Amino acid sequence: MKRIGFLTSGGDCQALNAAMRGVVKSLLNSDEQVELFGFLNGYQGLIYGNFRMLEGSDFSGILTRGGTILGSSRTPFKTIHEPGEDGVDKVEAMKHTYFKLNLDCLVILGGNGTHKTANLLREEGLNVVTLPKTIDNDLWGTDMTFGFQSAVDIATDVIDKIHTTADSHGRVFIVEVMGHKVGFLTLNAGMASGADIILIPEIPYNLDKVVKAINKRKEKGSKFTIIAVAEGAISKEDAKLSKKAYRKKLERYTHPSVSYRIAEEIEKKTGQEVRVTVPGHMQRGGSPCPYDRVFASRLGAEAGKLILKGEYGFMVGYKNREIVKVPLEDVAGKLKSLSPDADIIKEAKMLGISFGD
Amino acid sequence: MKRIGFLTSGGDCQALNAAMRGVVKSLLNSDEQVELFGFLNGYQGLIYGNFRMLEGSDFSGILTRGGTILGSSRTPFKTIHEPGEDGVDKVEAMKHTYFKLNLDCLVILGGNGTHKTANLLREEGLNVVTLPKTIDNDLWGTDMTFGFQSAVDIATDVIDKIHTTADSHGRVFIVEVMGHKVGFLTLNAGMASGADIILIPEIPYNLDKVVKAINKRKEKGSKFTIIAVAEGAISKEDAKLSKKAYRKKLERYTHPSVSYRIAEEIEKKTGQEVRVTVPGHMQRGGSPCPYDRVFASRLGAEAGKLILKGEYGFMVGYKNREIVKVPLEDVAGKLKSLSPDADIIKEAKMLGISFGD
Amino acid sequence: MKRIGFLTSGGDCQALNAAMRGVVKSLLNSDEQVELFGFLNGYQGLIYGNFRMLEGSDFSGILTRGGTILGSSRTPFKTIHEPGEDGVDKVEAMKHTYFKLNLDCLVILGGNGTHKTANLLREEGLNVVTLPKTIDNDLWGTDMTFGFQSAVDIATDVIDKIHTTADSHGRVFIVEVMGHKVGFLTLNAGMASGADIILIPEIPYNLDKVVKAINKRKEKGSKFTIIAVAEGAISKEDAKLSKKAYRKKLERYTHPSVSYRIAEEIEKKTGQEVRVTVPGHMQRGGSPCPYDRVFASRLGAEAGKLILKGEYGFMVGYKNREIVKVPLEDVAGKLKSLSPDADIIKEAKMLGISFGD
Amino acid sequence: MKRIGFLTSGGDCQALNAAMRGVVKSLLNSDEQVELFGFLNGYQGLIYGNFRMLEGSDFSGILTRGGTILGSSRTPFKTIHEPGEDGVDKVEAMKHTYFKLNLDCLVILGGNGTHKTANLLREEGLNVVTLPKTIDNDLWGTDMTFGFQSAVDIATDVIDKIHTTADSHGRVFIVEVMGHKVGFLTLNAGMASGADIILIPEIPYNLDKVVKAINKRKEKGSKFTIIAVAEGAISKEDAKLSKKAYRKKLERYTHPSVSYRIAEEIEKKTGQEVRVTVPGHMQRGGSPCPYDRVFASRLGAEAGKLILKGEYGFMVGYKNREIVKVPLEDVAGKLKSLSPDADIIKEAKMLGISFGD
Repeated sequence: MKRIGFLTSGGDCQALNAAMRGVVKSLLNSDEQVELFGFLNGYQGLIYGNFRMLEGSDFSGILTRGGTILGSSRTPFKTIHEPGEDGVDKVEAMKHTYFKLNLDCLVILGGNGTHKTANLLREEGLNVVTLPKTIDNDLWGTDMTFGFQSAVDIATDVIDKIHTTADSHGRVFIVEVMGHKVGFLTLNAGMASGADIILIPEIPYNLDKVVKAINKRKEKGSKFTIIAVAEGAISKEDAKLSKKAYRKKLERYTHPSVSYRIAEEIEKKTGQEVRVTVPGHMQRGGSPCPYDRVFASRLGAEAGKLILKGEYGFMVGYKNREIVKVPLEDVAGKLKSLSPDADIIKEAKMLGISFGD
Repeated sequence: MKRIGFLTSGGDCQALNAAMRGVVKSLLNSDEQVELFGFLNGYQGLIYGNFRMLEGSDFSGILTRGGTILGSSRTPFKTIHEPGEDGVDKVEAMKHTYFKLNLDCLVILGGNGTHKTANLLREEGLNVVTLPKTIDNDLWGTDMTFGFQSAVDIATDVIDKIHTTADSHGRVFIVEVMGHKVGFLTLNAGMASGADIILIPEIPYNLDKVVKAINKRKEKGSKFTIIAVAEGAISKEDAKLSKKAYRKKLERYTHPSVSYRIAEEIEKKTGQEVRVTVPGHMQRGGSPCPYDRVFASRLGAEAGKLILKGEYGFMVGYKNREIVKVPLEDVAGKLKSLSPDADIIKEAKMLGISFGD
Repeated sequence: MKRIGFLTSGGDCQALNAAMRGVVKSLLNSDEQVELFGFLNGYQGLIYGNFRMLEGSDFSGILTRGGTILGSSRTPFKTIHEPGEDGVDKVEAMKHTYFKLNLDCLVILGGNGTHKTANLLREEGLNVVTLPKTIDNDLWGTDMTFGFQSAVDIATDVIDKIHTTADSHGRVFIVEVMGHKVGFLTLNAGMASGADIILIPEIPYNLDKVVKAINKRKEKGSKFTIIAVAEGAISKEDAKLSKKAYRKKLERYTHPSVSYRIAEEIEKKTGQEVRVTVPGHMQRGGSPCPYDRVFASRLGAEAGKLILKGEYGFMVGYKNREIVKVPLEDVAGKLKSLSPDADIIKEAKMLGISFGD
Repeated sequence: MKRIGFLTSGGDCQALNAAMRGVVKSLLNSDEQVELFGFLNGYQGLIYGNFRMLEGSDFSGILTRGGTILGSSRTPFKTIHEPGEDGVDKVEAMKHTYFKLNLDCLVILGGNGTHKTANLLREEGLNVVTLPKTIDNDLWGTDMTFGFQSAVDIATDVIDKIHTTADSHGRVFIVEVMGHKVGFLTLNAGMASGADIILIPEIPYNLDKVVKAINKRKEKGSKFTIIAVAEGAISKEDAKLSKKAYRKKLERYTHPSVSYRIAEEIEKKTGQEVRVTVPGHMQRGGSPCPYDRVFASRLGAEAGKLILKGEYGFMVGYKNREIVKVPLEDVAGKLKSLSPDADIIKEAKMLGISFGD
C-alpha cells in the first residue's frame, strides 16, 4: 500500500491533467495498492491540509482537458520561510500535513519556482517526484516541458490570423508572446507563422536594426511586417542596466507591456502605423495538443514507475529523446534558456528572420 | 461586355475574398463578357486610379483565404469632401477614374463607413452594388453580415481557453471582445463560451450589479467568473454623459481599453484578482468559417445576378432567410444594434447570465 | 414543484448537452422548485425505468462537451408497438414509468424517428416538450436543428484537407458526407469547401453529366476535381426504381457506400484515378461549434419557459429567425428536404457547381 | 551562380511547401546567385523535362499551405529500370534533363521509395540533396520526418470526435489510422486520444486478447471501447504467412481495409455492435501544424547550407535533437519501424493500453 499526494503549483498550463492521469493510471495498473490524495490549489493545500481523496474515475476523460482538476496557485519560493498570513510556518506546516497523512510520496507538477520548493521539501526529508510543467520550456534538466508545444500552437494560430489583416492593411503588427524570461515560445511560434522579425530576451535588440529590417522589407515590396516579441524581450541598452535601474525605467511607461514601448518607438522612427496584439493567458489554456498529451502521459507513466520502485527525489525529464530521472538538487534554481548560437537561431537567420541584433 | 470594378474598404474581415469570388464566378459562368478591375487599398485605389486587371485565376483558391487580395484602407466619410493630402478632390477623382475607365459598375465590399461613401457615389451617378462586410453585424438592412460568425468562432475559442485557466486559479477573468458600438459579437461569443457576465453597449452596466453577480457565484461555490466585455461597453453613469464629456473622462485613464477600467473597479470592490485579455485584431483574421464561406458566396452570386440584370444602387442583404436587395439610400448612415428586449437577451438571462443591469 | 424527465434518443450529435443545460439552467433560475430525472440511453431508459436524478452540477461544464451525458439509443418507431425482447409492451411501459414517477413533463431531444414516438406519447396523455436534434437538418417545422452547423464545420474541414492532396496529385476525389435522405449537410459543406460537383438526394444525378463536368474542368486546365456526395445520393435511373427494387439492386454491390459505386463508374468512363474518403461518424462528434452552442442554449431556455408555463405538446423550433413552438402532431412523420428550386441551389449553380443534373 | 532543381515525389504530405521555402529562402539570403527549376509532378517532371522557373515570390505565403506547389506522383522504384509508357529509358531521361539544364544539384523531397531513386541518381553522378517527407515517420536515418506530427494531430482529432459518439452509444469503435507498414502514427494518435486498444504492425495482434481487453472494460463499467488500428496491422496468425499467402488470403475479403475484418471478428466473438471509421487521405492534407512548419523550415535551411557548400549526396535528417546529414546510400532501401520493446510501448502498457499481444 502506498499513499501518494498530488499537487499542481504555479501558473497552470495544458496537459497538467494528462500528466497526473498518466501517473495514476500507471499506479492503478500495477499490483500495488494505492491511496491518492489531491491537495487543492498548489502548496496552499499542503500547508493547510486541504485535500480530497482521488479515485480512478476522477482521471477518466481528463486527458484532453485543460487546466488542473486540483487547482493551482503561486506560492513564491522567496517568501517560503516567511510566516503565512495567519502566522503559520509554511515549511513546518507542509511537513506536518505530509507526515500526519503518513504519505509515501508527493507528486508535484510545476515550473521553476515550484521546483525550488519541491527540492526544499526533499531536503526536509519528504519523498518527492516532480513533473516539468511550463509553456516557457525554461526548466533545467529537460529538453522539453509539457504545455510548451500547446502554447506554440496557440501563439502560432494568433500570428497566422494577424497575418491576414496585416497583409490587407499593409501594417506593421507586433504580437506579444509569453515565455517569461526565455525565448523558446516566441522563437518557435514566430518561425511557425512566418514572422519577419523575432525579438527574444536571449538576444537583446537594437531598435535601429529592427527599423532597418522593416524598411528593407518595404524596399522589396512587402507592404507589411510581422514582429513576434517575447514578453521578456529587452533592448541592448536596457540589458546593460542593473535590474533595479531597469525596473525604475519601466515605471516611466504607462503601459506595462514591452510591445507597446517598441511599437511607439517604431512609429516614431518610421512614421508607419504599428498595431499590437497581446493574446495573454489564452496561451496557457484549452485542450493540450496531441504532442503534449502523449508527452505528458509518458512522463506520468515513468513517474509512476519511479514511485513503484521507491526512487524519490527526482524530476522526470526528457533528454535526447529518452525519458530520464534528474536529481531535484540539479534542477532547482537553474534556468534553461536559448543560446544565441543555437542552430535554430542560425537557421532562422538563414531564412531571413531578423532578431534585431 | 461589362467592365466591373471591385474594391474592399474599411477594416478587413473574413470572407471578403469568398464574396468577391462569388461575384466573379457568377459573372464568368454567365454569357456576358466581363473585364474586371481590382482597385487597390479601398477607395484610395479609386481616387488615385490604382488598380490591376483581374482574371478568373486570381479567384482560384481564395474561398478559404482571410483578408482581401485587393488590400483595404479606411477612407473616413467625414473627410470625403475635404481635399486629400495632395489637394485632390476625392469625390471628383473617384468619378474621374470610374468614367475614364468606362466602368459599368463598382462592386464595393465594406461596413458602415464604406456604405456612406458608396451611397454618395450612387448619388453622383455611379452604378454601385455593395456587399455587407463586418464582424460587428451592425449594418442596417441585413440580418447578417459576413465576417460575423467567423469572429464569433474566434472570440469563443479565446474565452474557452481562458476558461480553463480561470478555473484552475479561481480568478475573475475579463475577455474584451470586438464589435465597435454594438453587442452582437460579444453576446454570441459570451453565450457560446458560457460566460457568466456579458457587458454590451446596448445595456449600460451598473458596476455594483456586476460585483453582486460575481459574489453570488462565489456564494454558490464557483471559484471563478468569466466576463465578456464588448469594446463599446459603457456604464449607466457614463451613458448619461454627452459624447464630449465621455471622451474627456476617458482621457483620464492611462489604459485605452474599457476592460482595464472595469477590472480595476472590480478589484477595488471585491479585493479579488482580476485578469484581462484583449485578443484584438485576431478576431478579424484567418480563414472564414464554413458559415461565412457559404453566406458570402451566396451574396456574391446574387450580386453577380444584379450586375447581369443591370440593377444598381443596392446592397445585397439577408432578411428572414432570404437574400434581398436593399436600396443603398436606406442603408447609408444607419446603425443596426441589439434591442435590450430582444428574445436572445431574455434567453441569456433565463440561462443565468448577468448583463450588469 | 415540477418533476421533469429528460431523454436523448436516436443517433447522438453535437449540442445535445448544451440544449439540456439550457432547459435546466432556465428551470433552476426560475422560482419553481424542480426535480430532474435523467433517463438513460433514450427511450430504453423510459421503458425500463432506468434513470438517475440530476442536479445543477451535472450540467456544469457540459456546454462544450459533445455526445450526451444521458446516453442514447435507437428505438425504432416501426417496432414501438411490438413487444420488446423480454415481452414488454413498450408503450405501456413508458406510460407506467412516467406515471409511477409522477412526472409533470418529459423533455425529449431527438430527430425524425424520435419525434414520432414523442408524438405517440403525447397522444397517450403524457406531457412532452421536444428539441430538434440532428446533423441532417431534416426536421419539419424548424428552419434549423442543432448539430447541423457543427457537422457542416467538420465535413468542410475534411474536404479542405482533401483539397490539398487532390491538388498535389491531380486526382478526382469523392468525399461522402452524411445527411441521411437529405442534402443540406452536403450542399453546405460542399459550397463551403469549394467542391466542384455536389450530389444530393433531392437532385438525382446523371453520371454522364458528372463525367462531363469533370472533363470540362480538365479542359480548362484544372488537374483535380472534388465531388461532395451525400450518403443518400441517387442516380436518376435508380430514383425511378421502387424502394424494393432499389434495395435489391444495392445488394449486388460489395461496398455499401454509394460513393464507391460512383467512383467505380467514373473511373470506367474517364480512365482517371478516383479516390474516396468517408469520414463517417466523426461528423456527429466532438464539441459543438459556437453557432450550435448559442442556438441549442436558446432553444433550451425557451423549452424551460414552456415547461414553467405548462404548455406541453410542442417542439421548440426556429422559423424566420424567431424561436417558435410547433405542435408535435405537425412535426411527427414529416421530412423536411431541400427544394431543387431553392435559391441556394441556384446560387451554387451560378458559382459553377455541377449537381450532375 | 548555382542552378538548382526541385521535385516532390510520392504521396504528398503537410510541410512540403514549408521545406522547399526553407531551402529557397536560405539560398536567396546568401551571396550566391541561384536559378531555380521546379520539376512538375515528381520524377515525371525530371524524366520528361517538364519544369517551370521558380522565383522568390513563388515561395511567399506557402509556409502554411498543404500539398506541394510542384505537384507529385508515384514513380515506383521497382519499375525505374523498365521503359516508360512511351518506351523512354527513365534513368537516362532524368540524367539527360539534369545535364542538359546544366544543374548543380537536385533537391528531392520524398519518402522511402523516393529515396531509393534519389540514391540511384546519386550513383549515376547527379548531385542530390534530399529532405525526409512522410506522415509515416518510417525513414531510416532520421528520428523525425515532416508531415508526421501534422498527421498525428489530424488522426487524434478524428478519434477525439469518435470518442463522444462512442460514449453516447456505448459502442466499440475502430478508427483506422494511416502509417503504411509502421505504427508510429497510430501509436501516437492512439495515445493522444486515449484509445483503449492500439493495433500496430510491429506487434501482431491476437484477436482473443483484443476481445478480452474489450470485455475487461465492460466489466469495469466502461460502456464503450476505442480501438486505433494501423492500416498495416496484422494478426499473429497472418504474420506467420508468407507475403504471397497473406495476399491471397486478403483476396477472400470483400472489403480491402483490415479494420472491417477486425470489426467483423469482434462482432462475432462479442455480439457487440462495432463501427469503423477510415478517415483516409485527409490525414495527409491541410495546413502543416506549427511543429512541422518549424521542423521543415529548419531542415530546408540546412539543406540550403549544404548546397551552398557543395556537399551533395545527403539526406538532411534529425538525430538526438540535432540536424544532421545522412549519406543517401545509408538511407535508401531501409525501413525504420517501432521496436516492440521501445519505451513508449512500455509506457503505453503502463497506462493500461492493450496491444492485443
